Amino acid sequence: MKIVIAPDSFKESLTALEVAQSIEGGFRRIFPDAQYIKVPMADGGEGSVQSLIDATKGELLEVEVTAPLGNKVTGFLGISGDKQTAFIEMAAASGLHLVPFEQRNPLKTTSFGTGELIKKALDLGVKKILLGIGGSATNDGGVGMLQALGASFKNAAGEEIGFGGEQLQQICQISLENLEPRLQSVEFEVACDVNNPLCGERGASAVFGPQKGATPEMMQTLDNALAHFADVALAQQGIAIANHAGTGAAGGMGGGLLLLPNVQLKAGVQIIIEATRLAEHIQDADLVITGEGRMDAQSIAGKTPVGVAKMAKQFDVQVIAIVGCLREDYNVVYQHGIDAVFPIIRQLNSLEETLKQGRENLESSAENVARLIKLKM
Amino acid sequence: MKIVIAPDSFKESLTALEVAQSIEGGFRRIFPDAQYIKVPMADGGEGSVQSLIDATKGELLEVEVTAPLGNKVTGFLGISGDKQTAFIEMAAASGLHLVPFEQRNPLKTTSFGTGELIKKALDLGVKKILLGIGGSATNDGGVGMLQALGASFKNAAGEEIGFGGEQLQQICQISLENLEPRLQSVEFEVACDVNNPLCGERGASAVFGPQKGATPEMMQTLDNALAHFADVALAQQGIAIANHAGTGAAGGMGGGLLLLPNVQLKAGVQIIIEATRLAEHIQDADLVITGEGRMDAQSIAGKTPVGVAKMAKQFDVQVIAIVGCLREDYNVVYQHGIDAVFPIIRQLNSLEETLKQGRENLESSAENVARLIKLKM
Repeated sequence: MKIVIAPDSFKESLTALEVAQSIEGGFRRIFPDAQYIKVPMADGGEGSVQSLIDATKGELLEVEVTAPLGNKVTGFLGISGDKQTAFIEMAAASGLHLVPFEQRNPLKTTSFGTGELIKKALDLGVKKILLGIGGSATNDGGVGMLQALGASFKNAAGEEIGFGGEQLQQICQISLENLEPRLQSVEFEVACDVNNPLCGERGASAVFGPQKGATPEMMQTLDNALAHFADVALAQQGIAIANHAGTGAAGGMGGGLLLLPNVQLKAGVQIIIEATRLAEHIQDADLVITGEGRMDAQSIAGKTPVGVAKMAKQFDVQVIAIVGCLREDYNVVYQHGIDAVFPIIRQLNSLEETLKQGRENLESSAENVARLIKLKM
Repeated sequence: MKIVIAPDSFKESLTALEVAQSIEGGFRRIFPDAQYIKVPMADGGEGSVQSLIDATKGELLEVEVTAPLGNKVTGFLGISGDKQTAFIEMAAASGLHLVPFEQRNPLKTTSFGTGELIKKALDLGVKKILLGIGGSATNDGGVGMLQALGASFKNAAGEEIGFGGEQLQQICQISLENLEPRLQSVEFEVACDVNNPLCGERGASAVFGPQKGATPEMMQTLDNALAHFADVALAQQGIAIANHAGTGAAGGMGGGLLLLPNVQLKAGVQIIIEATRLAEHIQDADLVITGEGRMDAQSIAGKTPVGVAKMAKQFDVQVIAIVGCLREDYNVVYQHGIDAVFPIIRQLNSLEETLKQGRENLESSAENVARLIKLKM
């Protein structure tokens, strides 16, 4: 029996690799001789770099980068075992968690550090860059990131603009002349799981600004600034980013990235599925086990288990999900390739205690799923 | 496919019948054409009468009885569909819940009402009485119950003693002369799930007295009174109840019952298994599903699921348990006939909210167990 274990992480409790290990542990108690293929997954969000490192036997590299408020911090990126692909999470350099709560202000925060991580990936000589852009502290349209990669944004006085979303309204001249030439020869895929446009009611500033610390007044300033940036980009570079789906992701990072060559915005789970060569593992499997921290109706919108399940169904392989918790509305997943779902909570406890018991509860659930499979019916 | 569903109740959430119905509901979504036999179970405690009524298509009868403090309340008993067997819970007449918290005082409380329920059963002409003795407010050695059935307990002045545990120390003369003669011709089984003796450190007063409102001083008084009762019973009736296992159950009720003819103290779950003719249902089943509100290491000591599982294993039938919650130490149940266990909690919520979601969570769990069984491996 060949079993592919391809779960997402259980946020705040277990990494995707730890989830896969726990499921294998539980199953091995009942089927010690089955073949287990662990493929830690992710959806492009937090933990994706670690999952891709685990899945490709790659490694993690630490890099000093510019934090959202301009100070230096230690960020990281991953490189695949075959050294061909770099894995980057925007949050590792430009994440909200890098800014103390009382200093959160998207007028000031820059995505410069993410540009530095991309530059580091180019230094490593990779052929492909996978970038996840969730969890950012910024609303600068990716301008900081572009500056780190050699793009220039000058104001009316001919001076380079500073860091932060409010600076975008001063842009008079965009130049891509000195942009990193090595970007021309890499494939660049961006895991982008929202389809918001850059500006307006559903834009980056209005929808994601508040969680980054924007007041209603700041939101308006930021929205105007992004619109101005988009106008100049269209006029001077011929690149339309204002209304394109996904350009509003990560404070407009999705939009800014479109100024780079060869960039594709894709669904995060699809990028991970390709990077981990999941299809090759699944095609001759007898069973696929996936999972995530919380399964609900949103799970059919680009989350890991349903992405894995759809792939499994292409090969007519059965799929069980083992999950941290399950919302009332979860059962739409049955129509998307998940055959059965088991939550791991065994008793009512505090959230903290429950997260701590994650590994034990998961192993126990996996064991009981295996026990049930073993029954002769 | 024949599936026997034989669960205990989920206390404070669902009766055993409701549990069985919910499990059937979940299974029917996946196996609409299977044959489902619902056998609501119990362990002799609270809810046992309802389960036995449900299992035998019997009925519930209300009876005015004497509450523990002497006032009148509406109690109940059950009678099987074939009218041959009466089902009684001591708590229905003499339960702790019938005494307001601030009036709880085992010096004063009587088991008289339980005797009245037994008398009512005799009036109904049954051949068998099943009595569960959990949850009592009393510590009177069952003397009140015996008085209701015609036994006499006189003090030094030749007067009948009054109600309550403290009165036992005055007993000088026990007479069974006027005891209900119809007791001679019924089988009388008592569901008794503790093996404590009547007196001493592990006796009724010391172990169960405090939860009924006894102070340390009262405990000593009550223990002395029970010991005196046992001395007189041995001297005058030749019946030894002081050290017998189980005589300490329900404030010494287990002991007092031994003064009646034909009484057997048995494990609760065994009584229920026999009363519901579980063996006949299980012998040709393909699967047995059981369950209880909480499964833990204690579950192997006379609780319903393990009792059901042991019976199923006699016929080599596989057993799945679906439970409200699961304690860390549960996994000893695998050595007692349970093949796989699934807790139904799907997310962290308040206890109140979780109990309210019991039916929905249970149906969902049952559906997923059925889904897993349906997978072709």
